[in-house]
Amino acid sequence: MLRSHTCGELHADHTGQEVTLCGWANARRDHGGLIFIDLRDRYGLTQVVFYPETQAELFKIAETIRPEWVLQIKGVVTKRIEGTQNARMATGDVELVASELTILNKAKTPPFEINNSDTNVNEELRLEYRYLDMRTERMQKNIALRSKVFQIIREYFIAQDCLEIDTPCLIKGTPEGAREYLVPSRVYPGNFFVLPQSPQQLKQLCMVGGMDRYFQIARCFRDEDLRGDRQPEFLQLDYEMSFCTEEDVRAVIQGSLEQIIQKCSPKPLKNGKVESYTWKHVMNTYGSDKPDLRYDLPITDISDIAADCGFEVFEKALQAKGTVRALRVPGGADLSRKEIDVWTELAKELKAKGLAYILLKEEGPVSPLLKFFKEGFLEKLMEQTGAKTGDALFFGADTFSIVCAALSRIRSEAARRFNLIDTSVHALFWVTDFPMFEENDDGSLTFSHHPFTSPNPGQWKNRKEKPLDVHAVCYDLVLDGYELGSGSIRIHDPVLQQEVFDMLGISPEDQQKRFGHILKAFEYGAPPHGGFAYGIDRVVMILAGEPNIREVTPFPKDQKAKDLMLSAPSPVPEKQLKELGIKVVEE
Amino acid sequence: MLRSHTCGELHADHTGQEVTLCGWANARRDHGGLIFIDLRDRYGLTQVVFYPETQAELFKIAETIRPEWVLQIKGVVTKRIEGTQNARMATGDVELVASELTILNKAKTPPFEINNSDTNVNEELRLEYRYLDMRTERMQKNIALRSKVFQIIREYFIAQDCLEIDTPCLIKGTPEGAREYLVPSRVYPGNFFVLPQSPQQLKQLCMVGGMDRYFQIARCFRDEDLRGDRQPEFLQLDYEMSFCTEEDVRAVIQGSLEQIIQKCSPKPLKNGKVESYTWKHVMNTYGSDKPDLRYDLPITDISDIAADCGFEVFEKALQAKGTVRALRVPGGADLSRKEIDVWTELAKELKAKGLAYILLKEEGPVSPLLKFFKEGFLEKLMEQTGAKTGDALFFGADTFSIVCAALSRIRSEAARRFNLIDTSVHALFWVTDFPMFEENDDGSLTFSHHPFTSPNPGQWKNRKEKPLDVHAVCYDLVLDGYELGSGSIRIHDPVLQQEVFDMLGISPEDQQKRFGHILKAFEYGAPPHGGFAYGIDRVVMILAGEPNIREVTPFPKDQKAKDLMLSAPSPVPEKQLKELGIKVVEE
Repeated sequence: MLRSHTCGELHADHTGQEVTLCGWANARRDHGGLIFIDLRDRYGLTQVVFYPETQAELFKIAETIRPEWVLQIKGVVTKRIEGTQNARMATGDVELVASELTILNKAKTPPFEINNSDTNVNEELRLEYRYLDMRTERMQKNIALRSKVFQIIREYFIAQDCLEIDTPCLIKGTPEGAREYLVPSRVYPGNFFVLPQSPQQLKQLCMVGGMDRYFQIARCFRDEDLRGDRQPEFLQLDYEMSFCTEEDVRAVIQGSLEQIIQKCSPKPLKNGKVESYTWKHVMNTYGSDKPDLRYDLPITDISDIAADCGFEVFEKALQAKGTVRALRVPGGADLSRKEIDVWTELAKELKAKGLAYILLKEEGPVSPLLKFFKEGFLEKLMEQTGAKTGDALFFGADTFSIVCAALSRIRSEAARRFNLIDTSVHALFWVTDFPMFEENDDGSLTFSHHPFTSPNPGQWKNRKEKPLDVHAVCYDLVLDGYELGSGSIRIHDPVLQQEVFDMLGISPEDQQKRFGHILKAFEYGAPPHGGFAYGIDRVVMILAGEPNIREVTPFPKDQKAKDLMLSAPSPVPEKQLKELGIKVVEE
Repeated sequence: MLRSHTCGELHADHTGQEVTLCGWANARRDHGGLIFIDLRDRYGLTQVVFYPETQAELFKIAETIRPEWVLQIKGVVTKRIEGTQNARMATGDVELVASELTILNKAKTPPFEINNSDTNVNEELRLEYRYLDMRTERMQKNIALRSKVFQIIREYFIAQDCLEIDTPCLIKGTPEGAREYLVPSRVYPGNFFVLPQSPQQLKQLCMVGGMDRYFQIARCFRDEDLRGDRQPEFLQLDYEMSFCTEEDVRAVIQGSLEQIIQKCSPKPLKNGKVESYTWKHVMNTYGSDKPDLRYDLPITDISDIAADCGFEVFEKALQAKGTVRALRVPGGADLSRKEIDVWTELAKELKAKGLAYILLKEEGPVSPLLKFFKEGFLEKLMEQTGAKTGDALFFGADTFSIVCAALSRIRSEAARRFNLIDTSVHALFWVTDFPMFEENDDGSLTFSHHPFTSPNPGQWKNRKEKPLDVHAVCYDLVLDGYELGSGSIRIHDPVLQQEVFDMLGISPEDQQKRFGHILKAFEYGAPPHGGFAYGIDRVVMILAGEPNIREVTPFPKDQKAKDLMLSAPSPVPEKQLKELGIKVVEE
């Protein structure tokens, strides 16, 4: 090695030793006639000092050094003078008195400061120069954390008797779910591979293949329009096991996340445990199937008292089989007109017609609604919601899903606005008993999860009468308000599978076309099995306290699915397309 | 769990316990009025016995069971009667006396026998039904071995202070190396991502980013016409480190393979060590840069004595600045005319004009060449090659590369034919000092490795006079005759990089077009760095003793790049192509 030590390991015990360090000039300070250079590598910083008298020639070279130059420095480890130690640096008790200096490489002035985490550098610039961004403390930490999470996951699942099985990236498309990336085949012109949205079918085939317990950190691809926590390609922990119940799968998955959080976060789990709630409960209580439970802020169903409250909007919503619900925001009476306008817009984005509210101010309630309310309704409202003077109440009156979406959004805004989030803990919990089916606009049924998800066996017999009341054996895991992933017990019984297809109105021809190879495999002895998958980028993002997964992805695409560093995608020579038997079509 | 134990864990100590097993009916034997079912899962086999008297109803159901049905069986662990134990089964001392039986799933008759490793099942059929093939002992072993190798690699590189950094699959193309798979971009019609041949540039950018030590088990893609040990997608261990010498990289890589071999193979390394040879040495001695050194069979350069030997073919080859070399095959005098004809065809496939030979039979030498030889040449030949009565000599007389290719091929054929391979050991060794440049047919230079490979610093000054004598700081690792991978110290000095481009005649415009983003990154303080990559599929294949990597790849493509199980690639709806702005062109 060109170094004897890293820049993070020298301390008082090394005093007097001659060592060689390599790294980047993090900063140069000319001070009191001396030159100080903080040499940086992945392991830390070491202060190097150059003396003009004893090392005149060296000093001259040191004077030319600019930030981010790559240096090899030999010197003697020396204790710093009392009072000049730096407790914030692991190596802060010592400095290196330079005796030799080799400039391994020069560097242009970087487009942003590497060693200053305070400046808010434009993200596009950071992505274009990702290799420089990687040198910052933030990215070094995030990428090290990501690597650590990988290892914890693998050690854990191997200890669970899993085999790590890598599934291919060039597979066949499924007409379900997200839009897929295509890969033209040269050998079979006009034919295409697709990049997997997830290894769902392949991991189920591993179970049919008797692999018993499988895991993989799988690269998945979705050609979707991006949001903050989405990327065209991302990693998921993918797990599947045979001869299991829902509880078995959940115990294994929960254990992995408990380990990750325990080993990677200073924060404990809220109340020291992982709760489990039904889908109905979280939707009714928080309006969301992935609520952030680091704060409470429950929503109250006031349909019973609102049916005859005098306010037409509420009454009509109920007449249309909708619901009326209220969110009490403690201390919310101080909200300004402007803030309420902003929240109203948020509710409207989610299809609410508006955002009714009451501010329970000291001087009396303020609301455009009051004039419509029948005598005594306000009191009933306050009683049912527990609202007190100083609070605000927000209302949703519409279909169940619109009310939930709107009030859930206001719930998170309120939590942020009034600092209600307990950021000293992580809230990790299960959501279970999802509905098996959802209704399309035309009244036909569609699956909520995927068509291989097992229905609740006890409820299945009532499927004809009350299809929407049938639950799936399907479970989500939510951390700090983010859905980490979901899983289910799969259908292994061909008769049950057929019944599900029938309920969904998928014809035998369609079944073959869409799921032929997996249905065929299932005829040869599929074991009962189930599994789960969770997004690793998202877990790392939450643990790192980052606002989006780009910050924890080594080489991410931007929000328009472009790699700004590589300038990808890009045009390719006509010759290459010709070989593939395809042609670019002008719009 | 639906089971209390796996099918591999019961033994005499469990006697008397009531247990529940789940698995596949491996075989049913009706014997002595009883029914025996071997229940199989990933962990092993357990014999289950059904008694007609005590469990009449159960017995009736058991009679219906067919191979590969999925069963859940409750029963009491019982010691087998003395003399009926099966020492070949881990659970062979006991059997399960069934008291309950649930048929979890039925199975069609599989297209091939799962529990019979002797039958030679057609590979296409095995690939089409990979999920059934996976249930065979062979595939279970291979996939478990693969998983184990993954874990050994990761533990090792993490212990080496590496960060595991996952690089993207949707990247930008490079005009070097193999043909790349394209992925059309929907967001930027007419533009394409490519799937990486390797993360070479990205891992170098990680070094520029100060990551210091990186590793990854990387999925790589090559759209090449396939050979036995190639797949369109494959995994490689990818490693890169900063501030290192060639020796540092080699020590780390060698350590990982020593660990894998030690933990996964019963065979030791030949002579207990990893040798290191120069490229010149192995080419001269074995005619190959990846010889199988589990046997010796050296090639002898006889150019000095052949120049005036009387045989025109030899003399002319030397006059054309070629070479004449001989391979001595001990005991080869018995080779039949037919065998020699086959070998001659092999040599011709490699561009040799023929395959001259002498059989040194008891009754005297036999060869069409003898009549041309000058007096005493045969004796000189025998002396120089060490050939004795009973041996054969094969000759190559052509350019260096043709002679090497042909005689190396004959060398491996001879080793197989005469059982010279020491299959009780692994021969792992380094090949170093590869030439920096190769000559194109038009006399211009091209790089042997890639244009970022560092030349030998001492030889670089002579590059103008003797470019072909300059070595690269580049090293390959060879195991049992397979090249596992290669690596190099990369160029980090922009001046040197420029000199290399100049030697290769790559214009500044071309440099920008082909390597722009990495050259730009290198201006911002690239550290000295180097790395290596090796094919994991190939390592597992060798350790498993399999003839090709399909046998150790969970879901491989066939030799025509097709997934027979998924029927991929396949046509896609016109609508999807339209969204991507591409069109299939009819031939």
